[in-house]
Amino acid sequence: MADGTVKTSSKTGTPAQSGKVIGRSNITSDQQAEIDAQRASLSHTRRPTVPALEEVLYKPVPLLDHGFVRVVDYFGDDGAIVQAARVSYGKGTKKVSDDRNLIRYLMRHRHSTPFEMCEIKLHVKLPIFVARQWIRHRTANVNEYSARYSILDREFYVPVPAQLAKQSKTNRQGRGDTLEGSAAEEALATIENLSAEAYSAYTRLLNEDQQGGVIDASKDGLARELARMVVPTNFYTQWYWKIDLNNLFHFLSLRADAHAQYEIRVYADAIAALVEKWCPLAFEAFRDYRMTGSAISGPGMQVIKRLLAGETVTQAESGLSKREWGELMQVLGRE
Amino acid sequence: MADGTVKTSSKTGTPAQSGKVIGRSNITSDQQAEIDAQRASLSHTRRPTVPALEEVLYKPVPLLDHGFVRVVDYFGDDGAIVQAARVSYGKGTKKVSDDRNLIRYLMRHRHSTPFEMCEIKLHVKLPIFVARQWIRHRTANVNEYSARYSILDREFYVPVPAQLAKQSKTNRQGRGDTLEGSAAEEALATIENLSAEAYSAYTRLLNEDQQGGVIDASKDGLARELARMVVPTNFYTQWYWKIDLNNLFHFLSLRADAHAQYEIRVYADAIAALVEKWCPLAFEAFRDYRMTGSAISGPGMQVIKRLLAGETVTQAESGLSKREWGELMQVLGRE
Amino acid sequence: MADGTVKTSSKTGTPAQSGKVIGRSNITSDQQAEIDAQRASLSHTRRPTVPALEEVLYKPVPLLDHGFVRVVDYFGDDGAIVQAARVSYGKGTKKVSDDRNLIRYLMRHRHSTPFEMCEIKLHVKLPIFVARQWIRHRTANVNEYSARYSILDREFYVPVPAQLAKQSKTNRQGRGDTLEGSAAEEALATIENLSAEAYSAYTRLLNEDQQGGVIDASKDGLARELARMVVPTNFYTQWYWKIDLNNLFHFLSLRADAHAQYEIRVYADAIAALVEKWCPLAFEAFRDYRMTGSAISGPGMQVIKRLLAGETVTQAESGLSKREWGELMQVLGRE
Amino acid sequence: MADGTVKTSSKTGTPAQSGKVIGRSNITSDQQAEIDAQRASLSHTRRPTVPALEEVLYKPVPLLDHGFVRVVDYFGDDGAIVQAARVSYGKGTKKVSDDRNLIRYLMRHRHSTPFEMCEIKLHVKLPIFVARQWIRHRTANVNEYSARYSILDREFYVPVPAQLAKQSKTNRQGRGDTLEGSAAEEALATIENLSAEAYSAYTRLLNEDQQGGVIDASKDGLARELARMVVPTNFYTQWYWKIDLNNLFHFLSLRADAHAQYEIRVYADAIAALVEKWCPLAFEAFRDYRMTGSAISGPGMQVIKRLLAGETVTQAESGLSKREWGELMQVLGRE
Repeated sequence: MADGTVKTSSKTGTPAQSGKVIGRSNITSDQQAEIDAQRASLSHTRRPTVPALEEVLYKPVPLLDHGFVRVVDYFGDDGAIVQAARVSYGKGTKKVSDDRNLIRYLMRHRHSTPFEMCEIKLHVKLPIFVARQWIRHRTANVNEYSARYSILDREFYVPVPAQLAKQSKTNRQGRGDTLEGSAAEEALATIENLSAEAYSAYTRLLNEDQQGGVIDASKDGLARELARMVVPTNFYTQWYWKIDLNNLFHFLSLRADAHAQYEIRVYADAIAALVEKWCPLAFEAFRDYRMTGSAISGPGMQVIKRLLAGETVTQAESGLSKREWGELMQVLGRE
Repeated sequence: MADGTVKTSSKTGTPAQSGKVIGRSNITSDQQAEIDAQRASLSHTRRPTVPALEEVLYKPVPLLDHGFVRVVDYFGDDGAIVQAARVSYGKGTKKVSDDRNLIRYLMRHRHSTPFEMCEIKLHVKLPIFVARQWIRHRTANVNEYSARYSILDREFYVPVPAQLAKQSKTNRQGRGDTLEGSAAEEALATIENLSAEAYSAYTRLLNEDQQGGVIDASKDGLARELARMVVPTNFYTQWYWKIDLNNLFHFLSLRADAHAQYEIRVYADAIAALVEKWCPLAFEAFRDYRMTGSAISGPGMQVIKRLLAGETVTQAESGLSKREWGELMQVLGRE
Repeated sequence: MADGTVKTSSKTGTPAQSGKVIGRSNITSDQQAEIDAQRASLSHTRRPTVPALEEVLYKPVPLLDHGFVRVVDYFGDDGAIVQAARVSYGKGTKKVSDDRNLIRYLMRHRHSTPFEMCEIKLHVKLPIFVARQWIRHRTANVNEYSARYSILDREFYVPVPAQLAKQSKTNRQGRGDTLEGSAAEEALATIENLSAEAYSAYTRLLNEDQQGGVIDASKDGLARELARMVVPTNFYTQWYWKIDLNNLFHFLSLRADAHAQYEIRVYADAIAALVEKWCPLAFEAFRDYRMTGSAISGPGMQVIKRLLAGETVTQAESGLSKREWGELMQVLGRE
Repeated sequence: MADGTVKTSSKTGTPAQSGKVIGRSNITSDQQAEIDAQRASLSHTRRPTVPALEEVLYKPVPLLDHGFVRVVDYFGDDGAIVQAARVSYGKGTKKVSDDRNLIRYLMRHRHSTPFEMCEIKLHVKLPIFVARQWIRHRTANVNEYSARYSILDREFYVPVPAQLAKQSKTNRQGRGDTLEGSAAEEALATIENLSAEAYSAYTRLLNEDQQGGVIDASKDGLARELARMVVPTNFYTQWYWKIDLNNLFHFLSLRADAHAQYEIRVYADAIAALVEKWCPLAFEAFRDYRMTGSAISGPGMQVIKRLLAGETVTQAESGLSKREWGELMQVLGRE
């Protein structure tokens, strides 16, 4: 089943971040039933609520060919950030009567603790190699599906052709342009075939099928914690991931960035869209100051001031290295 | 006003942990109005709610003579702990059909991450010397009232006579029995008078009264960030404090303990009572395994086994130091 | 090469934790040269040093068939723990004149901060599935080899026959007894063949061999960050891992434990042996109170007291669940 | 003694950050003896050492009237940062052959983990109100002198006249110009007298003098954990503080900043000078990119680009608020 789905989705090249439900391949019927149940129950609360986020609560946003992200809980909102700041600065903040300006002031001056007063919990299904990058962010709480206890599903990531990128010639970590024709076909076939073989080796080692049914009653299976070792990192895992807004902004600043690998960026982009629903003022400030903003070095600021003063400045006498100069000119749109 | 209240409360010796509202001295009319407004608003949510905690949401629990703790937000409940554990162990947990047993199993075996899936935010008003112990717990988020920006209120802690303990003779950090008669009177007078003098020195330095009114128009005041330095650590501060349940349990295991200083213990006890409303199953497991439980060393277990086997064991040949032996016998109720 | 080595080591079944250098398969000649250079340089320092640890500094301890752990830096020693405790408790600790007793007291009463004053940095080479468990410990610093930038070596873990365990019937996460004869042969062959195929798929996707040489000049290779997705989790990665002694003890209490998976336990055991060289008094206390010690619940202590009083106690009226009772009896060696 | 010293130092107005040893008032003879012993012992080590830091190891840098900071241990250096980066990026970093450029690249692109591979431990003596700001930085290890166990020394901070600043009219948290003449005299007298009274109240409550001698044998003293509550926050405490270089840079970026309170800034400045000895390349990069650099918002960059293009831009149509515009013009030196 998964295999079929993979082929389809990879052939049709559904853009991963489209949000269009790809269906069974992303959500199992059990999960769908659980989600419906969660969304059905409605209670009263004295806590602040965010209607725009309640609207999508528990709803999975499909990502890649089998993944998703969904909000399973949250607390706090733009108001909680303002409230925390006003406790700290007391009468000192009375003057900044406007919440938006206060939040922008906090973001601009890296007064980060008020943003820690908002917390969100996500349920994420993602390829193992993406999970390995993600987990580097240590200031979060995680509960991951364990293959020591349970059998992994036969679900593995196969890029859509548009994402079959060559190694960049210029950037050791980046992607170049896309493979075409037979090269692309071969790459897809290699990934799909190896993944399929790996999963069949996995079940042979377990002597169990995906449903936990014994394959050959005359044999014993290898322990799950051992059999899992043959599973490649494009197979999917899932976890609950809980983090405060300040640390989530740090995650987004690195993972929703152009330098991030596409497969984790689609998750970061989807989460960014959820944060915009959750705390619109904080997100706007984050976007203006962190995502679209630039950090200019001291020597770099000197160059800018001289340029503004009408001077001609060359890299040679700027005090910047070639690389630093190149990056500065790029930021100034002078290249 | 504060001064009067202090005298009264200290004389009458209202037990700090009684929970009986002491009134104005703990909550200002502004705070009361804010609290009423917060409790009035009721919205719908798809998030799990805990009725028993909603019942007391925002309500301050008065502590000591001017302090309080109140829940301002929370997410998760016993169900969220179970849900996180089942994600980790998958089908592996299906067998433990009962939530209570699963939670006790997690607590017993220090599988702590599922408890991190619950988060709570408290608003706490506490003496500075208590805040200084409290802040040692680093895995929490804090926004504290800042005396760089705003003027401190004239509110300072004076122990009730029942808490005017002598230095313990046996324990370098503990308290002995209580001071009596004139000794107690003198101690109270010393604390109250020094506190009153300190506050008047503080306002003289500021050249401002508590309401921010200028005292002597012909003079300039010292910067707030400097003037605050003469305020003793029995003055009250306040903060928003946010923490996950696993780290909160660690806090409680140290601060709701008999070795903790009384003035922080009353806060820990009040928080423990709130956690019991919030996550009753997790709290029960915490109480059984962490609060009332005992950690026995390997050599200590050998002694217990030998005793159970009917042997007579002496400290000399137990392999335990006098101190270790004493502590073990105490745990076994053999002293 | 790697393949040959794997076969040999798996056939000969060299016990992973033996410490006997398995040679090239664990250390490359480049690494050996770097190690020799590091060990050659000797300087003067005013810092406290630990001769027993200096003795093994940089030396890799071979683990599993291609892994190792080695100390690359450290600071602090038993003396630093005592020094930190004496700063905290000041004259209060003068009475405990003996360092060993002070350290044991700190460990017994979970005064953990003095242990945080010791820090160690390790260089570890380990299978990806082990790294995935290891990284759950968030209070550490990590720099891992990145397959976005560089090509993975052809080194994968194949268990020695003695470790080819069946799934435990009783314990969802544990191992049962060992596979034998043809079953073992088949399992080994499955793991080795799938690993070999995966690596060849990996290099085909890259269109590069292990040395980075182009395989087919007429073709383009897939980006490294994509090609790596077909690599199974039994392939080796490596990282620098830095942690303080208190958090390291927490890591060891979980990973050097009988419930930990064998493949991570061999690393924990090797690290424990290094810690014993580094801080012998702290390690002894850790072993006595944490590793060989037992946490008894409140209800459990009641049972012990009744047994010591000569009463007969049954699970039924003990207030313990069957499972809790079973675990208690096991600790008391009554089963 | 302390009192005398205080008066002198405050009168003579020795600039706190001068580094000139103020002597007995900062270091006790016991501490001096310990320091001499520490500096005397020299051992061999295979660990990387930093001669420039070894040179000042253990030596206290006097700060304010009674405080100091000194390095008591460290590990790592610029080389350790490079080493960690090369492990992560493997062959990917071979191209950046130059260590300085690699470190600057890491700093510029916020690749912060390699900087976490350096760790330092400081012994700091500081006023309590400074310690309260300092402790907000949670990613560090701390062991503080405890007044529950031991008696506080009679040492309190009194600003030098040059630091007796008025409350700023423009900035809620900042300082204005300095108090003069009688106003200054009065402020100093108020601080000194209140501090002296507080300490005498403290010893009366303890019924012990600074050396722990009983004052009135016919009376009992109050428990130390209670008596300390009357001590103002300008009294000195001390602690061991351990932190990695990445988090230390974050601390310095906030506390060595013009917006930081003078009394904590002198500590941050002194630590910055020590870091420059320890990791000169990393410090240079930190200074250029973080301390002297500027974070420009997206809208702000648009303004800069338009200005560079020769356009006239006004706040009104810049999309920036008055405050944001003002801050941008300040950064560009256009005010």
